[in-house]
Amino acid sequence: MSYRLYYWPGIPGRGEFVRLALEEAGVSYLDVARTPGGMAAMTRLLARGPQRPFAPPFLQVGRRLIGQTANILFYLGTRHRLAPADEAGRLWAHQLQLTLADLIVEAHDVHHPIGVELYYEDQRPAAKQRATSFRKSRLPKFLGYFENLLRGRKHLCGARVSYVDLSMFQVMAGLRYAFPRAMKRHRTPGLDALSARVAERPRIAAYLASPRRLAFNEHGIFRHYAELDG
Amino acid sequence: MSYRLYYWPGIPGRGEFVRLALEEAGVSYLDVARTPGGMAAMTRLLARGPQRPFAPPFLQVGRRLIGQTANILFYLGTRHRLAPADEAGRLWAHQLQLTLADLIVEAHDVHHPIGVELYYEDQRPAAKQRATSFRKSRLPKFLGYFENLLRGRKHLCGARVSYVDLSMFQVMAGLRYAFPRAMKRHRTPGLDALSARVAERPRIAAYLASPRRLAFNEHGIFRHYAELDG
Repeated sequence: MSYRLYYWPGIPGRGEFVRLALEEAGVSYLDVARTPGGMAAMTRLLARGPQRPFAPPFLQVGRRLIGQTANILFYLGTRHRLAPADEAGRLWAHQLQLTLADLIVEAHDVHHPIGVELYYEDQRPAAKQRATSFRKSRLPKFLGYFENLLRGRKHLCGARVSYVDLSMFQVMAGLRYAFPRAMKRHRTPGLDALSARVAERPRIAAYLASPRRLAFNEHGIFRHYAELDG
Repeated sequence: MSYRLYYWPGIPGRGEFVRLALEEAGVSYLDVARTPGGMAAMTRLLARGPQRPFAPPFLQVGRRLIGQTANILFYLGTRHRLAPADEAGRLWAHQLQLTLADLIVEAHDVHHPIGVELYYEDQRPAAKQRATSFRKSRLPKFLGYFENLLRGRKHLCGARVSYVDLSMFQVMAGLRYAFPRAMKRHRTPGLDALSARVAERPRIAAYLASPRRLAFNEHGIFRHYAELDG
């Protein structure tokens, strides 16, 4: 089985949550938009067809296109032992992933509170206000929720690593990149240990050291602007 | 099987997407937080337990709690014939629901661009800017996407009504409530016809005429502020 992943080249973004799952699963995949002609292929798929996705990332599996990050992970989790096997466990993993997705939207909207189609530079005063709200109110609430789930546990759900753990690793890395000062004020020993364990998994470690891994930057979801950190 | 739904009383909000599915399924459920002592019960469940949800709505099924609106609908869709039966169809329905969820977040953030914990009155200038972006850029993009899916079809997915159709009905009603002037500028014959068909379904029609149905208001997701309509 070979997968074709479609996502904006140049940023980790939401595509990274899918990449981490594919890498941990050890399956072969093509990161299409990072290959020659790949962006044009992605644009074509987004423009036509009865089951076209609303936006990247999406995964091509044979003739099927699967969109929405959490939905892609739900699909992969079932097939590659990256989620609990029973239905209740699968839905619980998915519920946590959707809660992470909520946090990801809010982390993005810190630098884009007015409009995703506008530049950050055109919404800086609002971004500064939203950043204060995010750092003081939302960030502690989300971190506390996930930290609490890890009390006495090694994984966020189930008895072994899942795509939720991989995504949590990426979210923590992104938050530390975007808000290094704010993140230092939170005690998250469970989440820190989880992140370290994920980074040390052989396939993930090999991936992180490879050119396939993209660095955070100021075009993605998690952006570092000193005036938004606190 | 009797379900217990937990959601903030007084607003349709995200709870309404679950209510519409439960009503169409014709199953009995208790809207717990709207009963005496129900808010305290909801608060207790949100505060403790290893599998507590991050936020309402959540559904209690026996001893299980299922959170995240789209996840609840995924669960109900499988059990009550409110989604395609095959796996590919189920994931496609879920993908559309997650895309609707993205639209719902954006419709909410029009009046709360700075912080969900602040009053609308404290973020009016930013809200006005975000409203312009939403009306001119995001709303047409989402409406065009869903309208296009209905070309020559009676349902957004599958061969019969699904929870996605029910949610689309609610989103269209909410958008028309919040942005009556902006919505008049969009031609959405497919979505209008779908909404009318949903409203005429016997169980939905009976529900809409009952006191169980809550009206839109300025505490919920879809709020009408004349200065944000255009």
